[in-house]
Amino acid sequence: MTHQHIALLGFGNVGQAFVRLLQRKKDLLLKDYELTYTITGIATGKHGMAINPRGIDIGQALQLISTGDKLGPLSTQPSIKDPIEFIYNCGADVLFENTPVSYADGQPAVSYLRTALQAGMHAITANKGPVVHAYQELTKLAKENGRKFYFESAVMDGAPIFSLFRHNLPATNLLGFSGILNSTTNLILTRMENGDSFTGAVAYAQSIGLAETDPSGDIDGLDASVKVATLVTVLMGIPIKPADVERTGIRQLTAEDVVQAHKQAQRWKLVCTARREAELVITSVRPELVGTDSPLYGVNGTSSIVKFEMDVLPQLSIVEGNPGPETTAYGLLADFINATHQG
Amino acid sequence: MTHQHIALLGFGNVGQAFVRLLQRKKDLLLKDYELTYTITGIATGKHGMAINPRGIDIGQALQLISTGDKLGPLSTQPSIKDPIEFIYNCGADVLFENTPVSYADGQPAVSYLRTALQAGMHAITANKGPVVHAYQELTKLAKENGRKFYFESAVMDGAPIFSLFRHNLPATNLLGFSGILNSTTNLILTRMENGDSFTGAVAYAQSIGLAETDPSGDIDGLDASVKVATLVTVLMGIPIKPADVERTGIRQLTAEDVVQAHKQAQRWKLVCTARREAELVITSVRPELVGTDSPLYGVNGTSSIVKFEMDVLPQLSIVEGNPGPETTAYGLLADFINATHQG
Repeated sequence: MTHQHIALLGFGNVGQAFVRLLQRKKDLLLKDYELTYTITGIATGKHGMAINPRGIDIGQALQLISTGDKLGPLSTQPSIKDPIEFIYNCGADVLFENTPVSYADGQPAVSYLRTALQAGMHAITANKGPVVHAYQELTKLAKENGRKFYFESAVMDGAPIFSLFRHNLPATNLLGFSGILNSTTNLILTRMENGDSFTGAVAYAQSIGLAETDPSGDIDGLDASVKVATLVTVLMGIPIKPADVERTGIRQLTAEDVVQAHKQAQRWKLVCTARREAELVITSVRPELVGTDSPLYGVNGTSSIVKFEMDVLPQLSIVEGNPGPETTAYGLLADFINATHQG
Repeated sequence: MTHQHIALLGFGNVGQAFVRLLQRKKDLLLKDYELTYTITGIATGKHGMAINPRGIDIGQALQLISTGDKLGPLSTQPSIKDPIEFIYNCGADVLFENTPVSYADGQPAVSYLRTALQAGMHAITANKGPVVHAYQELTKLAKENGRKFYFESAVMDGAPIFSLFRHNLPATNLLGFSGILNSTTNLILTRMENGDSFTGAVAYAQSIGLAETDPSGDIDGLDASVKVATLVTVLMGIPIKPADVERTGIRQLTAEDVVQAHKQAQRWKLVCTARREAELVITSVRPELVGTDSPLYGVNGTSSIVKFEMDVLPQLSIVEGNPGPETTAYGLLADFINATHQG
């Protein structure tokens, strides 16, 4: 039987979906994993923070946020306003870090996760920024403290990618991979194929909350390059940065290009690739024509795929369809169970 | 550091590929898993058996088999001729069972695996027969003896399916799956799509050693139904038998059907499905038309796919491309490491 105190730093769609999922799986966690929990801290970007060692009422917290109110009334330590101070005082065994991504340096998430690990917490994030920028440091720190630094949701939402290589593919040599790792551009290309203009498709992606007001991080391939660098760093053991990835976005593709390709049984996809060459790795993100015999062809809309090439398994692909905040939340839950469950 | 004595019961393409893979990964097993091994027994269908407590020379064994000779000269116990007697006397810590599949009752493989577990060995098989017919009994027996009964290669060769659910998908409820699980029929349909006749495609599959002399087990969907029943039994926790799976093979499909469908951007596939309905599960194997938006569409030739539907992950697919005996052998290696490696 383990009882875990948990705190959430960042409480947007994913954080909220995660606490709802925790509640829904509460009985199962007890029954199958002898795992119970108390949420002792929630820190948000716009709604303030709350700490309560006896447990925050999640229903009330969700209610306050939905009405645009602050969490302060739920806190036993309302004077705490700073995220680092929050981490030191939240009394958690596990910190879930889900603040907005910084492509450039992974900050301030790296500092948050470092602080949590130094304070003896497991550190779990859905944020790829700190993984690509500080994987080795944070993993080493976690090990030194006997804790886990897990980040299953950083690439392909809740699909098990990192845990797959951690547990299921012993004695393999990962030679390279290719895939579709950015949902926004994949949805845009799918809509263009069905007759939408580039501008119209971008506006649609924004309207459903997938693309940001400034969609360039997706469209210019930056998000995809961070994911490529993350996979190469973690799974191939070669620490590279997003800037090392050769990168072309989808701006130069016209609706006509996309429609024409489809008529010829091909599809334009923003393809991510990495290939080991001796001690180095050659990586790229760029639009490529994909034929009907590729497992990438049928991956449309917001779905994603990564196709791994290993010495012992020539082609192993993982495909995730219809993701949403709940899918990302599941990755956090899987990390939580894997980090805390003994055996 | 752990040293394992291993024995192979069944030494065809897969068994031979496995010992070659073991040799190739020898240094890595020592370095990464502190795992060394001695092969103390090999039992074949046509080339007799050999037992040697100090280790069988694998180069010599492969040589004898390639020249059509018997293994007897390599044995220190040449009087042993019976597989059960072989298991009792092979001195192994791990038995690899790779005898031909029996769809009807999984025998004699079930007896072999039972004997190995009772004798205190880990039991590893690429054979789906004993899994579908005796999963619960053998798993219970393994647990009682503190051993493992693993069978990663029984479905989709070396692709991690069973270990995925064992380790990576905690707290999920598997609602159902669909997939392409029989390579032979998938290759036949792909060849028919490219202009071959049904008979020609079957002959081709036989010529490359994929289909058997009597190809009905594949063509009539029996092999696929065994795999469906295996996945349902192990992953959904509902023990069903192959006969419980509604089953239609591909005999009634004409080359014209297949070509016509492809012209309309569809493909005929032998689709396996399972869906939980209250306490029951509805299963089928039958030809279905698949459109270009399905992840099944791009899975051609000998490739295979399974698309899982879970409460928390709406669509997670695993695709394996270009499999061969080496891929199946890798599943055995992964089971070997997972069964014997502590931590």
